[in-house]
Amino acid sequence: MKITRPTLIVDEKKAAENIERMKRKISLSGNVRFRPHFKTHQSSRIGELFRGAGVTKITVSSVTMAAYFAGHGWNDITVAVLVNPLEIETINELLAREINLGLLVDSAEMTAFLEEKLEYPVNLWIKIDTGYRRTGIEWDREEEILRTAAAIKNSPKSLFRGLLTHSGHSYHASSTAEISEVYEETVIRMNAVRDFLSEKGFEGLEISIGDTPTCSVVDRFDGVDEVRPGNFVYYDVMQTALGACKEENIAAAAACPVIGRYPGRNELVIYGGAVHLSKEFITDRNGQRVFGLVALPDSSCATWGGSIKNTYVAALSQEHGIIKTTDTFIRGVKVGDILAVLPAHSCLTANLLRERG
Amino acid sequence: MKITRPTLIVDEKKAAENIERMKRKISLSGNVRFRPHFKTHQSSRIGELFRGAGVTKITVSSVTMAAYFAGHGWNDITVAVLVNPLEIETINELLAREINLGLLVDSAEMTAFLEEKLEYPVNLWIKIDTGYRRTGIEWDREEEILRTAAAIKNSPKSLFRGLLTHSGHSYHASSTAEISEVYEETVIRMNAVRDFLSEKGFEGLEISIGDTPTCSVVDRFDGVDEVRPGNFVYYDVMQTALGACKEENIAAAAACPVIGRYPGRNELVIYGGAVHLSKEFITDRNGQRVFGLVALPDSSCATWGGSIKNTYVAALSQEHGIIKTTDTFIRGVKVGDILAVLPAHSCLTANLLRERG
Repeated sequence: MKITRPTLIVDEKKAAENIERMKRKISLSGNVRFRPHFKTHQSSRIGELFRGAGVTKITVSSVTMAAYFAGHGWNDITVAVLVNPLEIETINELLAREINLGLLVDSAEMTAFLEEKLEYPVNLWIKIDTGYRRTGIEWDREEEILRTAAAIKNSPKSLFRGLLTHSGHSYHASSTAEISEVYEETVIRMNAVRDFLSEKGFEGLEISIGDTPTCSVVDRFDGVDEVRPGNFVYYDVMQTALGACKEENIAAAAACPVIGRYPGRNELVIYGGAVHLSKEFITDRNGQRVFGLVALPDSSCATWGGSIKNTYVAALSQEHGIIKTTDTFIRGVKVGDILAVLPAHSCLTANLLRERG
Repeated sequence: MKITRPTLIVDEKKAAENIERMKRKISLSGNVRFRPHFKTHQSSRIGELFRGAGVTKITVSSVTMAAYFAGHGWNDITVAVLVNPLEIETINELLAREINLGLLVDSAEMTAFLEEKLEYPVNLWIKIDTGYRRTGIEWDREEEILRTAAAIKNSPKSLFRGLLTHSGHSYHASSTAEISEVYEETVIRMNAVRDFLSEKGFEGLEISIGDTPTCSVVDRFDGVDEVRPGNFVYYDVMQTALGACKEENIAAAAACPVIGRYPGRNELVIYGGAVHLSKEFITDRNGQRVFGLVALPDSSCATWGGSIKNTYVAALSQEHGIIKTTDTFIRGVKVGDILAVLPAHSCLTANLLRERG
């Protein structure tokens, strides 16, 4: 690959290993379905790695993404965001008619809307909020959950599949033990909702969970029917900091040309800014924002070595990244060299650097 | 415009007013050239607003962007980032051969590289660092500046146009007075470099500056030959916070559908996340991160009203935005409504939401 500007490079061997590791753990947990989230890579090519591992059911985070993957032969897709009623035409034409489609609601009103507007049947999940406080009905609001469940039962176009949550608050954990606690709590709360609905006559509901930190940290997936992690295929610096992966598991980087070299202040400037990496950062133990770590790619930019010591992307403007480094490292770098930036958040970097049709 | 998903909406009347206001101020400053930065909008359509205001010379921040605008009839373009040597082929084929091209260097080495590799003549500027500490030769490093100037003089393919800086540290100012001070200091330092080079026999050099905060705040552009602001065409919440504009000058917003409504915690969730708005934020006086303000669009989404009180985008994940608001406002909003998000940083939002060919 001849790289001249900021370009996503994927170590497909590492990505395949990440997929295999997650798949193995899931298969050891008994009858649990692996429905990986494809929002991280948004790539039909990476999709084929999953297909090679036997995956046939996937998760996406937008109707547009669902249509893209449906166009690449995926025919069992959950759109794991609440239904956007303004997209009902696309949902009908490009998705519900063509594939086995899963949708999410968190109100009786939206369920009624779907019953009125859907032209083809879909699988419906109630989005449950187990603590993240983004979307979903809070897990202990029994009346609201029951009202929504009843609306689904009254909707011939909706097959009530179960309860779905995303424990995104696992990203706020400060240790892997805390991440495990988020998992435990999530499973307890989801099962409480399922038990409650079962008492009310709603039988056979599934539980679907999924976030990369908990899915990476726990050993087994007990108490759930489906897991939907996404980020794990690439991982990133944030996941490393959380303890969800090791740096050597990171499978995606941004290859960026060096355009400025400032030995006087031990800084390099790369062509690679907020429009390539995203402005996501982690805060290191010194309180410094880290927008990415830096490694040396091999000559074909197919992989890269370990991250360079005391070297990180410290600031980003639209097209520029400023790398703070050491006099040792800077001595060996010249303008025109390519560095591999391990992103703070691979989903956002991959989105920015993906090739658009 | 029928909007169903996160979409950039531009109030073209406001954008035209922003262009006209900047143009008028520049023309009142005597013989100063307006070379607006097109990285903010990256849009041939908005480019036409500038053309309508008499603009013929532009700035961009990448070779790709230069090629895009060259393809839309712009034939005098400065690529205001340091030359990336890996793109020399594109520079030759798509730019230097076709248009009146300006490039930036901050070393004698890169100047020599260009002399060796360029197939057509270009205008060359020395990038000077007047305090931002991103790229450029620090303004008081006379020897390095002289060495680079001499290299340009020795390069028949390079027409030495002058000295160029970007005082991006104006974004760190805490008052408009401080922004004005950045301008004053920039002009003093740039003129010191020009005078020094003039003494050494380099005559007729121009000074080019440009950053939206200083260009918005100062009354006149004395002591410079060219100004290159970009963000001012749209402005944004960050510029409002800096005092560089009023909220009513903001000319771009992200129209986002409401997909979740949580009156219990006075929050709305929009389909509109980090991949639409970018993760750029400002920190308000309460220490809260603000990823955008919220306004109501008119029925055609051609413009919007004033921002809603005590209402802001408080968190973003990949596709979701969480809006914190009041019980008064939430009462009037329903799922499926469209809200206009005034972005923290319009350049990044416009980049994410621009239509790609």
